Amino acid sequence: MTMLTLTETAQRLTAAGSVLVLTHRRPDGDTLGSAAALCRMLQRRGVRAFVHPNEDITPRLAPVVQGLWAPPDFVPQRIAAIDIASESLFCDSCAGFAGRVDLCIDHHPSNTGYARETLLCPRAAATGEIIWQLGEVLGDTPDCETLSALYVAVATDTGCFKFSNTTPLSHRIAAACIEGGVDFHALNREFFERKTRARFLIERHMFDTLRFYGGERIAAAQLTRDFCDSVGATGDDLDNLSTLLMQIDGVECGILLQELVKRGQYKVSVRTHKPLDASRICAGFGGGGHPRAAGCTVSGGAEQCRDMLAQAALHALEEPC
Amino acid sequence: MTMLTLTETAQRLTAAGSVLVLTHRRPDGDTLGSAAALCRMLQRRGVRAFVHPNEDITPRLAPVVQGLWAPPDFVPQRIAAIDIASESLFCDSCAGFAGRVDLCIDHHPSNTGYARETLLCPRAAATGEIIWQLGEVLGDTPDCETLSALYVAVATDTGCFKFSNTTPLSHRIAAACIEGGVDFHALNREFFERKTRARFLIERHMFDTLRFYGGERIAAAQLTRDFCDSVGATGDDLDNLSTLLMQIDGVECGILLQELVKRGQYKVSVRTHKPLDASRICAGFGGGGHPRAAGCTVSGGAEQCRDMLAQAALHALEEPC
Repeated sequence: MTMLTLTETAQRLTAAGSVLVLTHRRPDGDTLGSAAALCRMLQRRGVRAFVHPNEDITPRLAPVVQGLWAPPDFVPQRIAAIDIASESLFCDSCAGFAGRVDLCIDHHPSNTGYARETLLCPRAAATGEIIWQLGEVLGDTPDCETLSALYVAVATDTGCFKFSNTTPLSHRIAAACIEGGVDFHALNREFFERKTRARFLIERHMFDTLRFYGGERIAAAQLTRDFCDSVGATGDDLDNLSTLLMQIDGVECGILLQELVKRGQYKVSVRTHKPLDASRICAGFGGGGHPRAAGCTVSGGAEQCRDMLAQAALHALEEPC
Repeated sequence: MTMLTLTETAQRLTAAGSVLVLTHRRPDGDTLGSAAALCRMLQRRGVRAFVHPNEDITPRLAPVVQGLWAPPDFVPQRIAAIDIASESLFCDSCAGFAGRVDLCIDHHPSNTGYARETLLCPRAAATGEIIWQLGEVLGDTPDCETLSALYVAVATDTGCFKFSNTTPLSHRIAAACIEGGVDFHALNREFFERKTRARFLIERHMFDTLRFYGGERIAAAQLTRDFCDSVGATGDDLDNLSTLLMQIDGVECGILLQELVKRGQYKVSVRTHKPLDASRICAGFGGGGHPRAAGCTVSGGAEQCRDMLAQAALHALEEPC
């Protein structure tokens, strides 16, 4: 595997007559927005560039890649993977491309180097920032659709410029997008405000089951399969719920138990503030993860499991690190 | 009243030996952040500049103006009002300055022109954007504290760059703040994530009382005085609750009834999406406001009042505009 510079990447891509762009499974705004913007930039340079249809796409993200899905008979000269850290993150229909990716553009430090050549910028908040810089190298004048795709990429990966990964470039790209006529307010409403009714009911139920332990230091809640089914919750509706527990003042550890398809078995998400180590808490139950976000699976009664996890967190809080 | 340019404003302020800066009642991040940044810029130009102590300040905002409160014996040559649209918005301790303000810097289109001279930029997302531009005219090199104050001003008035008023300059200022070492993530967490426990309990209670009318088009909830008292809710905790109802998909009108100190009397907040007119709904109950946000006061049983408001909203929805 060879590491490329921006200029080399731009050369490789424009030298190809046709490029197929891959996005990752359960695609987010960054992989799709970056892929869409790259295709549009390359098309303006005379390259036939399309995005490989991603079967996991959600309705909210579909407009970002509208008109850019590769036709069924498309035979590309080059295959580029965008924002995909490893081949295990290929969507199912991309499985056949394993070992065949010519070029990868990514910002994940964990990138496995599976592509023949890679442009990796681990300090970029989003792959969208790398695509923006590629556009500058290409001398591209982005149209409003390209800018909208880049706005989605950067805004979603930075939580609307709220997360710690946000960079000066994230904001400069947003400024250019607004100047270029992007309807950023409609996009912000779509990605950062709108809640499906199912999501609203799930959040309400989670907060209704919430119990505090150790004063207010631990917040633990649970969701039963029956409840999630009764409101017709999708995967999107169940995403990132445990982080909401961490917004409450004084909470140092948030624990959410979500019942799996198998009754009485719970997927546990643990979130912590420094210095509490979430992965250590989960390791005690055969799980793992990162210091601030980890998970495990437990079995039993919902309340009994919740108390057990909360006790483990309490124990970790009281222990010296 | 004379309208000033940026350059004239910079000249007026630096020509003064000392300046007292006023902020508005129930001060927000923009009035305090802008005032603090302006004082620091002027101090670097040799002007004795301080902020008039605002008795309404909340603990969250106190660090923004730390060390900048005017000493009791401060006798300024000039008085400048920052982000204050009218004298009725002076905090109580500023009442004596009515009719005596030399210079006003503001972005509210509704500014009444009460100051002798005014720099008004209605297209600025925040007064902080005007202070930033003033700094450029002054040739100021802002330090990290000045930048932090400006970040607070711009980020809070744009809802962390989410609201429709966000401008390219909002983002460019944020980029400069990050480059200048501002701990933007700590500020974002403080202003856009952290919830007091009382706020959390209030939100949960509001959502628990929520009822939908007209399918999912109207969401109405109520809060009793007893509940708010029982959780020790402050004014901050009760702020902007009704907008949360509007996040739910399909909701075109959000109605919140908050019981006033007088039992059985409710302050009603109505929020709508286009084209429904909130002020028309409230006018029917002797209230008023803006097309998207209006209010009124009603008396009676909580549920009966809620149903009454919801029926009025339903009626407005079914009527042609």
